[in-house]
Amino acid sequence: MEKDPLKIGIIGLGTVGLGVIDFLTKNIETITLRAGREIRISGICAKRKNKKRKIDLSKLKWISDPLALSNDDETDVIVELIGGEDGTAKSIIEKALLNNKHVVTANKALIAHHGHYLALLAEEQQVSLSFEAAVAGGIPIVKILRESLSGNEVSRVYGVINGTCNYILTQMENDQQDYSKIFKQAQDLGFVEKDPSLDVGGIDSAHKISILASLAFGSRINFDNVLIKGIENISLLDIKNANAMGYRIKLLGLANKSKAGISQEVEPCLVPRESLFGKLDGGTNMVMVEGNFVEQTHYIGPGAGAGPTASSIISDLIDIARGNISTTFGQKASQLKISHHVTEEFISSFYLRFLLTDKPGTLAQLAGILGKYTISINRMRQLHHQDENAPVLIVTHPTKKTLLKSAIDEISKLEICKSEPVYIKIEDL
Amino acid sequence: MEKDPLKIGIIGLGTVGLGVIDFLTKNIETITLRAGREIRISGICAKRKNKKRKIDLSKLKWISDPLALSNDDETDVIVELIGGEDGTAKSIIEKALLNNKHVVTANKALIAHHGHYLALLAEEQQVSLSFEAAVAGGIPIVKILRESLSGNEVSRVYGVINGTCNYILTQMENDQQDYSKIFKQAQDLGFVEKDPSLDVGGIDSAHKISILASLAFGSRINFDNVLIKGIENISLLDIKNANAMGYRIKLLGLANKSKAGISQEVEPCLVPRESLFGKLDGGTNMVMVEGNFVEQTHYIGPGAGAGPTASSIISDLIDIARGNISTTFGQKASQLKISHHVTEEFISSFYLRFLLTDKPGTLAQLAGILGKYTISINRMRQLHHQDENAPVLIVTHPTKKTLLKSAIDEISKLEICKSEPVYIKIEDL
Repeated sequence: MEKDPLKIGIIGLGTVGLGVIDFLTKNIETITLRAGREIRISGICAKRKNKKRKIDLSKLKWISDPLALSNDDETDVIVELIGGEDGTAKSIIEKALLNNKHVVTANKALIAHHGHYLALLAEEQQVSLSFEAAVAGGIPIVKILRESLSGNEVSRVYGVINGTCNYILTQMENDQQDYSKIFKQAQDLGFVEKDPSLDVGGIDSAHKISILASLAFGSRINFDNVLIKGIENISLLDIKNANAMGYRIKLLGLANKSKAGISQEVEPCLVPRESLFGKLDGGTNMVMVEGNFVEQTHYIGPGAGAGPTASSIISDLIDIARGNISTTFGQKASQLKISHHVTEEFISSFYLRFLLTDKPGTLAQLAGILGKYTISINRMRQLHHQDENAPVLIVTHPTKKTLLKSAIDEISKLEICKSEPVYIKIEDL
Repeated sequence: MEKDPLKIGIIGLGTVGLGVIDFLTKNIETITLRAGREIRISGICAKRKNKKRKIDLSKLKWISDPLALSNDDETDVIVELIGGEDGTAKSIIEKALLNNKHVVTANKALIAHHGHYLALLAEEQQVSLSFEAAVAGGIPIVKILRESLSGNEVSRVYGVINGTCNYILTQMENDQQDYSKIFKQAQDLGFVEKDPSLDVGGIDSAHKISILASLAFGSRINFDNVLIKGIENISLLDIKNANAMGYRIKLLGLANKSKAGISQEVEPCLVPRESLFGKLDGGTNMVMVEGNFVEQTHYIGPGAGAGPTASSIISDLIDIARGNISTTFGQKASQLKISHHVTEEFISSFYLRFLLTDKPGTLAQLAGILGKYTISINRMRQLHHQDENAPVLIVTHPTKKTLLKSAIDEISKLEICKSEPVYIKIEDL
């Protein structure tokens, strides 16, 4: 190789950090050929030096102070893998960019919150801020949006982008067990983040969909405008009912662009069992992108894990080694538009579940309120009694989400309503 | 925009050429933002100037001589869309590269045959030779292999990469009609190339799989070593039998890399109905890539059409406008390895169909020959008589393809064998 090696400092030696070192070691020949030069580790850093790890790190240079690598003249790229939307991770990245170092990160929370500020900084310093690993593990969806579908007017990006939620929903169905039991199982297997709300509360998916929306629509990243609903209230009964109607329940990230503006949501949806989303099991992720010329495309792959995530990090590093320095969100950061975010426009059918007193006139009362909000009923079914109460299932015709929420609100306050009503959007894709 | 426009000359104004002009017109704002500069058409050229076309070309500069654009000082990029593995297309591209112009092409035949030579030329001239549109229409699989999965040791690339064949096989099943009728229908709809063997003979898929193999394995492109079998001999009976066993028949491009070497095949296969390949209908394409770190990933999208193909061409143009000039096959052309190609190693189960005289001892004779070649039988079934003959179906246990072909050869010469035996590989994926 004629060119100097690209020297990288790795901060954070958890599963992904060790995966990157493993990848660089095992595939060194291929990486060097593809990158056109050697990619060499100039230093590594983590909280505890003496922690027992699966990989021998004794030949690598240990740096105790994470900020020191960002100042190191011998390092061209900082690979930030400690996570967290603020604190050390942010300081490291800021300092690295200010010192004209490229940054590669898997930190979706940080990009979702500070992506625009950091992109402006990277642009000013003419360095790369890359985060292929932040969304959908091994699926190269960041680059696909930033470079491959880049000329399209994208109208929709939908994704199952949290493997933990998809695992829980799949297992509830497979084992016919309720949420709490499978959640515990997933926790025992180490699939759930320390703060479970990141996964099951939909926040992780929200971080990711806000990143995808920015890349797809050329808009300034706006995490605060993602409407978020998690999977904590999905019961086995809902899954069974969905199945009986030919649907499955999936936690979707949904980003839409219309003339009215941009919408971003994370919410559990009923999707047709025979659709690609309906077929997606376990930890696998999928992203669907629809553009005005490319039409509909789907991308499927492992959403997490050391190997797939490292694969995305290595691709960012090879790009930098090749000298392919992209804009952070696919166009000049200073030209990203502040988009109008819409929430009033959502229209879809809904699956509703109520637990109602089994007395004459109950259904009439329910139907009356739905009618008042101009919500028309497609199907209605009353299930077997539970004591004096009976579950009632309704599928509505397409309606405005705001109207539906008002109706639900009013119904939940009725005497006849014996538990919090459940509503799940039907996404026919 | 501060930068000069990128000036492109378009040669060939068929569906795709007009699609590119339409795309550049309709999405001009997005393209300019993404590219960081204007992409402007400096000249257009096709066989007949006065042909009636769907798009108004009167404001564009018409050039009569296709080679003139390759010499034009006012043109930075030549977009070659006339097709054909030799002749004018090759001359245009050679001249453009020699004149230090970038080349964007959708010409899979030309890349399959002359890709290595042209890549060396592009490398020498330090310009880009890009062909995202040559494989799988709107699916950005070329860039995915070249840049996103670039550090992986890829072991398999499998694809349904000819929409016409997939359309025919899907329609045979939907309409329960035999090959010849549906083939005629596809021809009437304009889905089949002038030379049908390109589609149904598997040659188009072979062009594409040879391109994907080179990108995936870092090997010098080698079209001559693709083993090709088309779909012309697939009968409705085979499709019905496959369905009854839980399979569907798909024409697959298959590229494998093992320690023994590289194999490239195009052939109809039985794939599990419940697999992603088994679910693929009509003109949709899909490519599966398996790498040692990224694991298994799938990419699905429209395999042809003006919009999707133009989308791929525009992404190549935006890359060039941004100054992201990649190596043609993902690494220096001069370092692409000449790979050892293996054909002896193929092992799989097979579906076999024979038409045999319905007499005592017939099956024994058949089984005897299979046994002689150490081919063991998993399932065997004799169907209803056709006159004095009866179709016999066999599913083998995994066996070497070479042994199977020898056995089939010997069986076909027997007195009891009343038509050419059919064998189809079972690909459990």
